[in-house]
Amino acid sequence: MSDYGTLESRVRRKSLLSKVCKAEDCIKYFKNGMNLMWSGFTPAGYPKEVPIALADYVEANNLQGKLRFNLFVGASTGAETEDRWATLDMIDRRWPYQTGKNIAKGINTGRIRMGDKHLGVFAQDAGYGFYTENGRYDIGIVEVSAINEDCGLALTTSCGIVAETLHLCDKIIIEVNTGQPSFEGMHDIHIQQKPPYRQPLLITKANSRIGTPYVPCDPDKIVAIVESKRRDKGRAFSEMDDTSEAIAGHIMEFFQHEIKKGRLPENLLPIQSGVGSIANAVIGGLAKGPFHNLSVYTEVLQDTMLDFFDGGNLLYASSCSLSLSEDPGFPRFFDNWDKYFSKITLRPLSISNNPEPIRRLGCIAMNTPVEFDIYGHANSTLVGGTRMINGLGGSGDFLRNGYLKIMHSPSVRPTKTD
Amino acid sequence: MSDYGTLESRVRRKSLLSKVCKAEDCIKYFKNGMNLMWSGFTPAGYPKEVPIALADYVEANNLQGKLRFNLFVGASTGAETEDRWATLDMIDRRWPYQTGKNIAKGINTGRIRMGDKHLGVFAQDAGYGFYTENGRYDIGIVEVSAINEDCGLALTTSCGIVAETLHLCDKIIIEVNTGQPSFEGMHDIHIQQKPPYRQPLLITKANSRIGTPYVPCDPDKIVAIVESKRRDKGRAFSEMDDTSEAIAGHIMEFFQHEIKKGRLPENLLPIQSGVGSIANAVIGGLAKGPFHNLSVYTEVLQDTMLDFFDGGNLLYASSCSLSLSEDPGFPRFFDNWDKYFSKITLRPLSISNNPEPIRRLGCIAMNTPVEFDIYGHANSTLVGGTRMINGLGGSGDFLRNGYLKIMHSPSVRPTKTD
Repeated sequence: MSDYGTLESRVRRKSLLSKVCKAEDCIKYFKNGMNLMWSGFTPAGYPKEVPIALADYVEANNLQGKLRFNLFVGASTGAETEDRWATLDMIDRRWPYQTGKNIAKGINTGRIRMGDKHLGVFAQDAGYGFYTENGRYDIGIVEVSAINEDCGLALTTSCGIVAETLHLCDKIIIEVNTGQPSFEGMHDIHIQQKPPYRQPLLITKANSRIGTPYVPCDPDKIVAIVESKRRDKGRAFSEMDDTSEAIAGHIMEFFQHEIKKGRLPENLLPIQSGVGSIANAVIGGLAKGPFHNLSVYTEVLQDTMLDFFDGGNLLYASSCSLSLSEDPGFPRFFDNWDKYFSKITLRPLSISNNPEPIRRLGCIAMNTPVEFDIYGHANSTLVGGTRMINGLGGSGDFLRNGYLKIMHSPSVRPTKTD
Repeated sequence: MSDYGTLESRVRRKSLLSKVCKAEDCIKYFKNGMNLMWSGFTPAGYPKEVPIALADYVEANNLQGKLRFNLFVGASTGAETEDRWATLDMIDRRWPYQTGKNIAKGINTGRIRMGDKHLGVFAQDAGYGFYTENGRYDIGIVEVSAINEDCGLALTTSCGIVAETLHLCDKIIIEVNTGQPSFEGMHDIHIQQKPPYRQPLLITKANSRIGTPYVPCDPDKIVAIVESKRRDKGRAFSEMDDTSEAIAGHIMEFFQHEIKKGRLPENLLPIQSGVGSIANAVIGGLAKGPFHNLSVYTEVLQDTMLDFFDGGNLLYASSCSLSLSEDPGFPRFFDNWDKYFSKITLRPLSISNNPEPIRRLGCIAMNTPVEFDIYGHANSTLVGGTRMINGLGGSGDFLRNGYLKIMHSPSVRPTKTD
């Protein structure tokens, strides 16, 4: 057993214990050309054991280009999985947001067919059956903390498109992560019906809970349960620089002005912030700043959010993923578990990025572009019109629907050729 | 009295009868540089008497360019008002969507400062106080059918931004239209609070009613009540042509395919359609077509909707405006009042074009571009990047949030120089 309990203590649906196996034992389920769905959102909560075992198998047997998959994930996963798959020519289609130099190269040379989409729409359209011939997928691989007696899955560090995965995939492989504490209770899972049966999402505060902590799963679909001790390969903290701090200062000043003008309440409105050094500086500014009783409604919580909690200004945060760095983020989180745990709600992508709660809550959306023009068009996706970086991501969901929409960027390029 | 009752029968808040006056008597309230809000959405439900009296006054006294206003309206109004104002140089700023050759010319030559916005965001941002220094406006001019005992306003053929107008303007001038039947009961007025107090919009069907038929108004703000017998100068029906009919045929075929694949229910999902000959052909196809028990959730109901009701396939429709043609649309509607009235719900722009109900209901959004590129970017606003036609309109609200998003267009330009 690990420091965090045995596999048996995590799999409380006892009949499933007969399906426990090694990652290598799952290779037989995979055939060339299959449609796969994974858990995960940004490098958080993605399956590791089975994708790595598959990559090892392809490498060992010289099957490069012969075992290729269509891969659908809420957003990017760790480089040790999808980017390695790209290197081994294991990816035919990839939807939507992805990370890694090799996968980006595969997309930009036309070897990997990449489809992009605003993330909040991707989750929904996958559920609508828009991406495969019959709307079904072959295998779902899902990382969980635990399985309860009713076969409800407690997820780990993200929710992504797990609810859709469990519904749409014919076979499910589960990785139970015993290499970290169980995240049971952090998730708020609400599964939307398709129109015309869809109902309102009754979220009126960032920490409103409208669902259950477990995702229901049909036990008969589960073909294998694999124990995993691997942790998320989260991105390291981006360092702040003088420019970022200056931009953050302007934003703080702007907020104070808006409060004075009566257009923002004293505790602002729920914050959404992107990734990168400016976003870090803004969150750093809020952590130290003059605003109290703040809340966050976003899609990715990064290391700086821990400072924000520690500063005492942040009451609670809602996100699709807890995307801390492997070090020092997660160790710091685990060491102060009680302080952070109850203040965080993790939601499915279809809800975290849905225009309905974003507009209702009045999020303050802040993101960083890589390109923009004098008309205010901005993007962080396609350099020069065609070179794909990662994908649209979720910034559009927030920028289109937020109360305030801020694209922050230095006003000059670092060099003439970057 | 008119055929449709007296002014006294329409103004049931009796204390307000002392404020009845002629349109010319209102001229004194207007000063150069004021911020004005009007009722109206597309040429429907806009004030006529007072704007025309002001134009007459400017013309008779050679005040061109000396009495200029900032004009904020839900969308375009009749050419006899805003376009004539543009001719007489009475418009400084105009937000957002507008219609008329002279106003477009004023914008494109830089004489009129025009600000564009997705309509569902415009209504909201006006309410947030984003468009004027203090978030207030000087005078609101609102066309109504009736005023009830509680000073609730029953609107006419559109809802637009009336709720925001009554809240944000310091003075209100009301035009009571006795030149047509009273539309009392057709409107569903729900006023959203600002974040963080905003609540869910509990619309689950196109005809869900979540509000009241009257817009509350502070009687002390009302400075004048003017009787009007002028009707909306609605646009005439666009004729269908062979190309439009062929496109409509393809869309009908596509819907049948989607039903067969299980991606659409037999009665489709609520329809949103734009304006123009292709939209007319599509609605014409649905009116005659194989789909039954349909509903419409849109922003503009035009003449073809009457055919759609008459065909028996359309159960009910929700819209921001009833934008029929002056002839034959409105006379046909009035002659068959009982048949149509109870099947139509008119909603404020902030709700008709809100992503929340559009996405929940799963609207099928269909619009026509004037330009598009091979990446799928489309617009019907700015020709060649800078020449403003009318404005964004509401198509983006529906295309971004619908279940299916269709941009229909002929594949060739009519001429080389159009």
